[in-house]
Amino acid sequence: MKRIAVLTSGGDAPGMNAAVRAVVRKAIYEGMEVYGINRGYAGMVDGDIFKFETKDVTNIMSKGGTFLRSARFPEFAQLEGQLKGIEQLKKNGIEGVVVIGGDGSYHGAMRLTEHGFPAVGVPGTIDNDIVGTDFTIGFDTAVNTAVDAIDKICDTSYSHKRTFVVEVMGRNAGDIAVWSGLATGADQIIIPEEEFDINQVVQRNMDGYEKRGKSHAIIVLAEGVTTADKFVQMMKEAGDTSDLRATNLGHILRGGSPSPRDRVLASWMGAHAVALLKEGRGGLAVGIQNETLVEHPILGTAEENALFSIAEDGKIIVNNPHKAQLELAKLSRELRR
Amino acid sequence: MKRIAVLTSGGDAPGMNAAVRAVVRKAIYEGMEVYGINRGYAGMVDGDIFKFETKDVTNIMSKGGTFLRSARFPEFAQLEGQLKGIEQLKKNGIEGVVVIGGDGSYHGAMRLTEHGFPAVGVPGTIDNDIVGTDFTIGFDTAVNTAVDAIDKICDTSYSHKRTFVVEVMGRNAGDIAVWSGLATGADQIIIPEEEFDINQVVQRNMDGYEKRGKSHAIIVLAEGVTTADKFVQMMKEAGDTSDLRATNLGHILRGGSPSPRDRVLASWMGAHAVALLKEGRGGLAVGIQNETLVEHPILGTAEENALFSIAEDGKIIVNNPHKAQLELAKLSRELRR
Amino acid sequence: MKRIAVLTSGGDAPGMNAAVRAVVRKAIYEGMEVYGINRGYAGMVDGDIFKFETKDVTNIMSKGGTFLRSARFPEFAQLEGQLKGIEQLKKNGIEGVVVIGGDGSYHGAMRLTEHGFPAVGVPGTIDNDIVGTDFTIGFDTAVNTAVDAIDKICDTSYSHKRTFVVEVMGRNAGDIAVWSGLATGADQIIIPEEEFDINQVVQRNMDGYEKRGKSHAIIVLAEGVTTADKFVQMMKEAGDTSDLRATNLGHILRGGSPSPRDRVLASWMGAHAVALLKEGRGGLAVGIQNETLVEHPILGTAEENALFSIAEDGKIIVNNPHKAQLELAKLSRELRR
Amino acid sequence: MKRIAVLTSGGDAPGMNAAVRAVVRKAIYEGMEVYGINRGYAGMVDGDIFKFETKDVTNIMSKGGTFLRSARFPEFAQLEGQLKGIEQLKKNGIEGVVVIGGDGSYHGAMRLTEHGFPAVGVPGTIDNDIVGTDFTIGFDTAVNTAVDAIDKICDTSYSHKRTFVVEVMGRNAGDIAVWSGLATGADQIIIPEEEFDINQVVQRNMDGYEKRGKSHAIIVLAEGVTTADKFVQMMKEAGDTSDLRATNLGHILRGGSPSPRDRVLASWMGAHAVALLKEGRGGLAVGIQNETLVEHPILGTAEENALFSIAEDGKIIVNNPHKAQLELAKLSRELRR
Repeated sequence: MKRIAVLTSGGDAPGMNAAVRAVVRKAIYEGMEVYGINRGYAGMVDGDIFKFETKDVTNIMSKGGTFLRSARFPEFAQLEGQLKGIEQLKKNGIEGVVVIGGDGSYHGAMRLTEHGFPAVGVPGTIDNDIVGTDFTIGFDTAVNTAVDAIDKICDTSYSHKRTFVVEVMGRNAGDIAVWSGLATGADQIIIPEEEFDINQVVQRNMDGYEKRGKSHAIIVLAEGVTTADKFVQMMKEAGDTSDLRATNLGHILRGGSPSPRDRVLASWMGAHAVALLKEGRGGLAVGIQNETLVEHPILGTAEENALFSIAEDGKIIVNNPHKAQLELAKLSRELRR
Repeated sequence: MKRIAVLTSGGDAPGMNAAVRAVVRKAIYEGMEVYGINRGYAGMVDGDIFKFETKDVTNIMSKGGTFLRSARFPEFAQLEGQLKGIEQLKKNGIEGVVVIGGDGSYHGAMRLTEHGFPAVGVPGTIDNDIVGTDFTIGFDTAVNTAVDAIDKICDTSYSHKRTFVVEVMGRNAGDIAVWSGLATGADQIIIPEEEFDINQVVQRNMDGYEKRGKSHAIIVLAEGVTTADKFVQMMKEAGDTSDLRATNLGHILRGGSPSPRDRVLASWMGAHAVALLKEGRGGLAVGIQNETLVEHPILGTAEENALFSIAEDGKIIVNNPHKAQLELAKLSRELRR
Repeated sequence: MKRIAVLTSGGDAPGMNAAVRAVVRKAIYEGMEVYGINRGYAGMVDGDIFKFETKDVTNIMSKGGTFLRSARFPEFAQLEGQLKGIEQLKKNGIEGVVVIGGDGSYHGAMRLTEHGFPAVGVPGTIDNDIVGTDFTIGFDTAVNTAVDAIDKICDTSYSHKRTFVVEVMGRNAGDIAVWSGLATGADQIIIPEEEFDINQVVQRNMDGYEKRGKSHAIIVLAEGVTTADKFVQMMKEAGDTSDLRATNLGHILRGGSPSPRDRVLASWMGAHAVALLKEGRGGLAVGIQNETLVEHPILGTAEENALFSIAEDGKIIVNNPHKAQLELAKLSRELRR
Repeated sequence: MKRIAVLTSGGDAPGMNAAVRAVVRKAIYEGMEVYGINRGYAGMVDGDIFKFETKDVTNIMSKGGTFLRSARFPEFAQLEGQLKGIEQLKKNGIEGVVVIGGDGSYHGAMRLTEHGFPAVGVPGTIDNDIVGTDFTIGFDTAVNTAVDAIDKICDTSYSHKRTFVVEVMGRNAGDIAVWSGLATGADQIIIPEEEFDINQVVQRNMDGYEKRGKSHAIIVLAEGVTTADKFVQMMKEAGDTSDLRATNLGHILRGGSPSPRDRVLASWMGAHAVALLKEGRGGLAVGIQNETLVEHPILGTAEENALFSIAEDGKIIVNNPHKAQLELAKLSRELRR
């Protein structure tokens, strides 16, 4: 291929800019032309497309968010939107596209693949819930931000002998909760992947103060379970009499300068996506597994290690859904006081 | 005096530990004995008191929160509690006490003063709402934390073309909102000290996108006005059609390693409190005004520059209530886009 | 005035961008036109000048360094350079200029004043060594960075029972050393403003380990005294047998996102400089004294509170030289273990 | 086993405390007794040993350095020291020991193994240069600190159009240089694993300014090659005429609160070391390879995947020496401007 494009889509994640930089620089290094698409699939359909020069991505690696911007664009789930997007790409002479984003973004890449247009996915989301990779771009930074915030909450929690329920992002996956909970020595971690009994949560919490000499407590809660406010309410109703507080770290987890690790992963995967397109290979999703670059078909059978299959009724099947590392959740229980 | 004590009270603030360290070290430097009182006035009444050695405060300056802990203790508003507290102090041979905290803590110090027990107040609260000082211990750190978080929210706000309403602490005072809003170039700052018209807020916000080419917007809101959730609701009802999000920075503002400035202010004021007690002077509140150490009577008349007077009906009058720097709020309006 | 310009000069300091933003936005708010001059006085003489729009300074407040760049330009000490610079300004219809920088930059502003061209100085340097202001733009951030680094060095110092000599910037002024030393509980602070006896330094250090039960030691050294390497050498020669290490924080102190306080001070002083020029007032230096905006004549007599006078032999006299707060250095000695 | 001990040795690394906490808590969780040894092998030989309670490791996870302290102790290379150390362990009824540290620490563990005393190594060093693991405890934090500092240096470098040579730790391994160089978009990375030609370094640097429109340059240098000062000298001698500056990040890389990733790795590996000892398995080194826990014999043949073999002449052979990821160094060259 001689000319490719890159877009970011879905919830923004720190490191997306590093991935864009890698795509641009690697493409130019390989003698290709590279275009940027603003606002994700919305910009693709609108033709909001521009040519990148090497200097355009100077100094963007350390910036949070995505300077290409992102946007929700449900219309791309429809055939009409897809065809219009491909038309725009072809009009600009673009032969392949790198899609940086999460689940929804990959669905778009799958549709491009269905229509025979070469797309390569790069996993960018703080939630770490993308199949085909051990780590997504943005996860490490989000965990850093969460731990920094929880360390701060520990200070005030200790000062006032309080129990804090801290809600972190993660609609389907408990990864941020597990990593940040383990890294802060949280007393309890509540994630969608594990069932919990509110009476046991309360029992353990009260025992901490009464029997194990604890001076305060932190409970890390993934948003996929419920909100911190509701969880505190549930604890009160189940008889918790400690000084309970709820806090939601919310959107600060999405921002901030990407961690070095996220910059490295983003650079590595972004450049690899270009290498694949250069060889004419599309319909693939890039990942890091076992600290090594891998690629999987976006669409295909489970035997082919494809990320998604499409059932007869047209429904999308995730072949090998992501799971948080429950081993680490178990470890946190063994190491807490 | 030969023997003094120190306590922290009210909401914890970064830098309280630096103030405790200064009290302990300065007292020992001056040849005095110094005791710690755990859990504020509650610990005073309980006799939860211990003798400090110089090494006990090694390495605490950089820690957030208060290692002496704090506690709400409404009983100290009653005569009985006050007398019991003084009795405990006298039993330990303590001749004066340094009280580090906010409004409520100062009221306690005022009661000690009424009963003739020498107390010196040191302003410790993130809200900056204490009379008799330009800056309180913890304010600088809280602003740093708020700005760090708002900078992060700007990243994601830009990526998605969103309007974020960011709630920061400050029940009576807009200082954190004003400083963090000015320092992040926030589009609007809503504080208890200034009236606002929700229609104008919305008008300006919509104009930003439509007429001034803005790509996103941040509105910083002091908790004393209302919650971020309710403010977003009000904006929607007043016709705002931008992509609105509410976020509450909440308790992370209370924690974290104190900023150098807070450590310096805390050291300076804590040591000064001891110097006053050494001279036998109590009933005073320490402050920094015009970058210089000052002290004011805690109780007295307005002419005496006392912080509080007591009206005939027993009500406490604040003689010269704190006000946020409205000049800075005005400046932020002149400098925004 | 209707048209002004702004430049940054001398060593860069975090917050310079916030000051430029304030100049640009305030000028536009006041209905004036505002131009940027690249690379300080060098750019002025070269005519490297461009017109600012309000959007040009969006998102620069949180960036370190100066996007207008700075440069050494000794030629501006000569009459020829000065006249050429003024000619360039006049050619562009510029009636007044805001100069953001340190000592050397102020000398340039003084020359412009001599020639009758209205200039207003804004103090931007991490060293805090400018006359006519309590605080310079960049000082707070530099202290934050120094304290963060020294806190880290404390960790490793403790682990290995070492004595670290930490060199911080400050050629003429010990401010960074005093503030960062006090804020980290450093054992000794060595600054140009105070004499020291190397034998006493060593005596105290050895006593710390042998008599006062210390587990490690930090000595903060201002570069104006000597280098860390040489100081360690001096200590060894004077008989220090502890495990000595030298480290120089160097240029990291110049960079980084400006602290909120620096952003606020920069905004405040930058806007004030424009307000003065709008009134047709030049030949002034802006400052913050006693937490209030002030301005002083750049050139004049000591009685007029002017920053500089010129002696009969043409030499520049600093009327009221800056001094580090020796009171804080004394305080650090009282509070150390 | 019923009773084990833990020590930290060699250069301190952030995360060592998290590893100690994991060893203590996991041992207690498994019903074992656990002892701490102060000051590494020196403390082992001296019998500086104490019993751990679960609360002793509360709140240490977020602290930098090692609260067990470390010390150089060349005497442990001698038989006499080794036997004395084992005697002390046995006197305290200790049946196995967890050694947290780098190369030298592992040699000590190898000697214990030779004498039949069960030891398990946990890799703790910022340099990432330990065999048998992809990542060592402390590496991620050190890279974070280096990148934070280099980002700051970029600010000032840009402002003044300078070339900075930034020296980072890494005596034998270029890992910190490679990761921090890639993550900051450094122009050149100089590591012990790759040869360099100073003329080419200078040529590329000058071309950057003259042909590729660069505004400044960062060269990251691993200490194992030479010092920053000497490298700048070499560049000057080879004809570089840019504004060159040398800076050494030095010891700040060793300190600081460990990153979440380092806390998680340390917890995981520390707990695994205990699990091995509980099963009576010693003579092993724990590691993370391909994101999975592994263990290798410390002493044995290359075929057994042992870390070290001992040659006939008594020399220690490293069977599979660590290498920095040259693939990432290559990537950084492809992505730079």
